[in-house]
Amino acid sequence: MKSSTNTLLMAMFELHPKLAQDTFYIADLPLCRLLLMNDRRYPWLILVPRQASLTEVYQLDQVQQHQLWDESALVGKRLMQFTHADKLNIAALGNQVPQLHVHHVARFHNDSSWPAPIWGLGTPQPYQPEQSQNVIASLQQIFADVSTHLD
Amino acid sequence: MKSSTNTLLMAMFELHPKLAQDTFYIADLPLCRLLLMNDRRYPWLILVPRQASLTEVYQLDQVQQHQLWDESALVGKRLMQFTHADKLNIAALGNQVPQLHVHHVARFHNDSSWPAPIWGLGTPQPYQPEQSQNVIASLQQIFADVSTHLD
Repeated sequence: MKSSTNTLLMAMFELHPKLAQDTFYIADLPLCRLLLMNDRRYPWLILVPRQASLTEVYQLDQVQQHQLWDESALVGKRLMQFTHADKLNIAALGNQVPQLHVHHVARFHNDSSWPAPIWGLGTPQPYQPEQSQNVIASLQQIFADVSTHLD
Repeated sequence: MKSSTNTLLMAMFELHPKLAQDTFYIADLPLCRLLLMNDRRYPWLILVPRQASLTEVYQLDQVQQHQLWDESALVGKRLMQFTHADKLNIAALGNQVPQLHVHHVARFHNDSSWPAPIWGLGTPQPYQPEQSQNVIASLQQIFADVSTHLD
């Protein structure tokens, strides 16, 4: 994809309403928006490439794919360091929300779904307002050095 | 990670027995072994970086990460072209089999688990011997140009 097309598609980016409803904004990294899922059962971050009309990773050009996965590795590694979790789960599914997004879930051997994948199990438990403020502030600090913008 | 270390870790690679048991060998790509899950409910390919002692993507060095995801994009795109599926699901979980492996599952709006993720749902349905031979042969042809070795 030509870079002028990329620029246009990035200008047209809008977060899917379902993602906007279920998450908190953390930061914009160079390519992706970083979100926290509002479900305190798991430390759960989502990366959304800020480009319109994407459903599959391979629709990004190779430079953007590498950028996406560089951001994914950074987010995954820092999430694991921050949480001291046992395993990281990464997934790009999109069966229910078609906009391309990549889950990063820090898993513990004693979490409520272990060892099953988390999707579709149990009921989300939203953060209490004060909890979410603290978690968001901590995450924004952790990713401040790679953020291009903070709301 | 230094490249001499990578070379040593690649020499030490052995496929996890559970992956060996549940899959068919398709090919070796430059970094990863390509496997077909023996479950005819879904077209389901798995990439396993041929390096010992890996559990997380971010443990690969950046060059290898890019190679992994280049191979993932190629495998995902060709799998979708081959199957005319509706959605690709990509996941690196590893909660049950710790060896780093990346699932690529071609999903259909009328498959048995849609829109849920496939893991942990229902019972695997192994291919009939003749079926598996045909599918393996087709897949080996599709990936012949990027295979470094065929068993």
